[in-house]
Amino acid sequence: MAGHTQSIERLMDELAKLPGIGARSAERLAFHLLKADDAEALALADAIRDVKARIRPCGVCYNLAEDDRCAICSDPRRDKSVICVVEQPKDLLALESTGSFSGVYHVLLGQLSPLDRVEPEDLTIDALIDRAASGEVREVILATNPTVAGDATALHITDRLSRIEGVELKITRLARGLPTGGSIEYSNTSILADALKERRGI
Amino acid sequence: MAGHTQSIERLMDELAKLPGIGARSAERLAFHLLKADDAEALALADAIRDVKARIRPCGVCYNLAEDDRCAICSDPRRDKSVICVVEQPKDLLALESTGSFSGVYHVLLGQLSPLDRVEPEDLTIDALIDRAASGEVREVILATNPTVAGDATALHITDRLSRIEGVELKITRLARGLPTGGSIEYSNTSILADALKERRGI
Repeated sequence: MAGHTQSIERLMDELAKLPGIGARSAERLAFHLLKADDAEALALADAIRDVKARIRPCGVCYNLAEDDRCAICSDPRRDKSVICVVEQPKDLLALESTGSFSGVYHVLLGQLSPLDRVEPEDLTIDALIDRAASGEVREVILATNPTVAGDATALHITDRLSRIEGVELKITRLARGLPTGGSIEYSNTSILADALKERRGI
Repeated sequence: MAGHTQSIERLMDELAKLPGIGARSAERLAFHLLKADDAEALALADAIRDVKARIRPCGVCYNLAEDDRCAICSDPRRDKSVICVVEQPKDLLALESTGSFSGVYHVLLGQLSPLDRVEPEDLTIDALIDRAASGEVREVILATNPTVAGDATALHITDRLSRIEGVELKITRLARGLPTGGSIEYSNTSILADALKERRGI
């Protein structure tokens, strides 16, 4: 829109780069920041700087961390013999929010995708293999997404893990089936096929 | 969600204060900023700082400005004898985008609202009266919003303007009627009443 000053224009451009923020929303947000207290607006600017300065990958599992090790890896109550492998930190948080896993994680930082040129060496698979080969690990749970790329990633890792010599390792993956609260009528065929294939005794 | 580091938590809290950004969006935006290049994320932080440091009200019309006077007030091609009175800088931008007004503006920085304790002295009405009384102004167009509060604000200003002595001043307001592209069927009664009342010869 004509008439914006240079610095507002720049703020709107930067805001519009955020996911889900279009030109109109960027304008609304920019005006909100303009109207807001200096303290509030600068708190946001500082929070962005701070996150970029302080967050780094955990030296063990590649989760987001503010120290060498993330909060989970440095928690003595977590069971270090079970590793749950996820694609990204968000997946880890979603699993953590269930409160039903007491082991540790390994974050791949992506999924295999040859078309996007994401090869195994672009993920943290080597570090996972090293952890699994240490002898302290009993089970590796593959919690990649239930998609073609996620399954391909899990398959590749299973192959690598099963070739580790001299270690007794259980390799599992998350269950597939009907999503709780969903309906059979509106479930697609692959969900129903999974649910049938993985049916359990009651 | 459990497991976020302190600095991510803080960034999410700050993002969630923005209008239209809920907890889930704040999380998505925070992760986007985490993943983004340092340069991109810091550009946003800098743009926020910059806007807060550089933007101030124009000394004449209270539009947003980076200097003493805004781009419109300092433009010699603008007709200083016609002042269009708007509630906020956004309204000014909307009118400017039509490209059909060549006068100058006056930004009230709000609308009268006794319930929210916004009284005439909280707006920039005194400055408007001073401008109108200078003798250089021919016409004042009241472009407050077509709402109860906007109309009340316009009425108060009309009253104040009409009591200026020794100055020949035309006071107008924006036309009311059917919005172009709208439909009569779905227009509410006050729009239709306005459209009838302000009908024009063809």
